[in-house]
Formats: sequence, structure tokens, C-alpha cells
Amino acid sequence: MKYEVQVFVTLKEAVLDPQGSAVNHSLNQHGYTEVEDVRIGKVITLTLDGEREAVDARVTEMCEKLLANPVIEDYRFEVREVAAQ
Amino acid sequence: MKYEVQVFVTLKEAVLDPQGSAVNHSLNQHGYTEVEDVRIGKVITLTLDGEREAVDARVTEMCEKLLANPVIEDYRFEVREVAAQ
Repeated sequence: MKYEVQVFVTLKEAVLDPQGSAVNHSLNQHGYTEVEDVRIGKVITLTLDGEREAVDARVTEMCEKLLANPVIEDYRFEVREVAAQ
Repeated sequence: MKYEVQVFVTLKEAVLDPQGSAVNHSLNQHGYTEVEDVRIGKVITLTLDGEREAVDARVTEMCEKLLANPVIEDYRFEVREVAAQ
């Protein structure tokens, strides 16, 4: 069975986000002064083929080993079944 | 009222994603051969203060002007009310 997994990788709250601050500053300068804070993360969309029971454990492993840096990043993911083409 | 808006910016399907391909290759090399495709995008979390009616229009403007490149990227966003601290 084919699955689409969206992995959201974001900086831990305590970690400074210079990229987010730059975007925040730029938005304010362009007149969007209602914006108070900006944080930027990654959304990694995986397409994979396998058994539903194994997907969560395998994706957790992928996140811990490769997709997220556990020291400065948090991650969460959502699994969605994809119709076979 | 304070809102948290999550903006998801992803490459259009027709656009090649070299970063995604590199991650896909690396996952396969690390034994995660069930992974068939990887696409990488951004999740931009905005904290803003304003009227709910105005938020959608203003965030759409921000996306069209600053946060997404309409030539190669798609965007969508979700608005969530944030309890006043």
C-alpha cells in the first residue's frame, strides 16, 4: 500500500530563528505591521510503499537519524493513504 | 485578537526538487528503500494581531508578494486563534 507522509520539522522554541526574524522585519517594512513573530521550518513530503503498521516506526527512525536534528529541532508527521495509480 | 497562521509553501509538481532527490537518495542508502519520492517545502508560522475577517486577505497578500514565488511555488495556510497571554 502507498502512503504519503508529511513530516514537519521546526526549530525548538528556545532556539533563535534569524531567518524568521529577517522575514518578520521585511513583512513589517512592507506594511504588514500586525505580524509580531515569524518562525520558519521544513515540510518534507515522503511517498512510500509498505505496511501501515510499520510506517510510523520507520518514519520515526528516519526523523531521528536523518530528517531532523534532535538537538535544535522538533518534528511531527501525518500519514495519509494514497490511491494506487 | 491574536492568531497563529501556518503557511505551507511547496514547489509546484512540475518543478524538479534536487534537494528532495538528494534526501530520497540518502534515505534509500540508509536502508529506507520503501521511500519512493521526497519533496521539501517550507512551513512559515506567523503570529499576528488583528481582526479575523482581515487575516485571510492580508496573509494571501503576504504570500503573493513575499512568502511564495508564484512562478514555481504553491501555498496554502491555516489560521488558528491563540489565547491571549
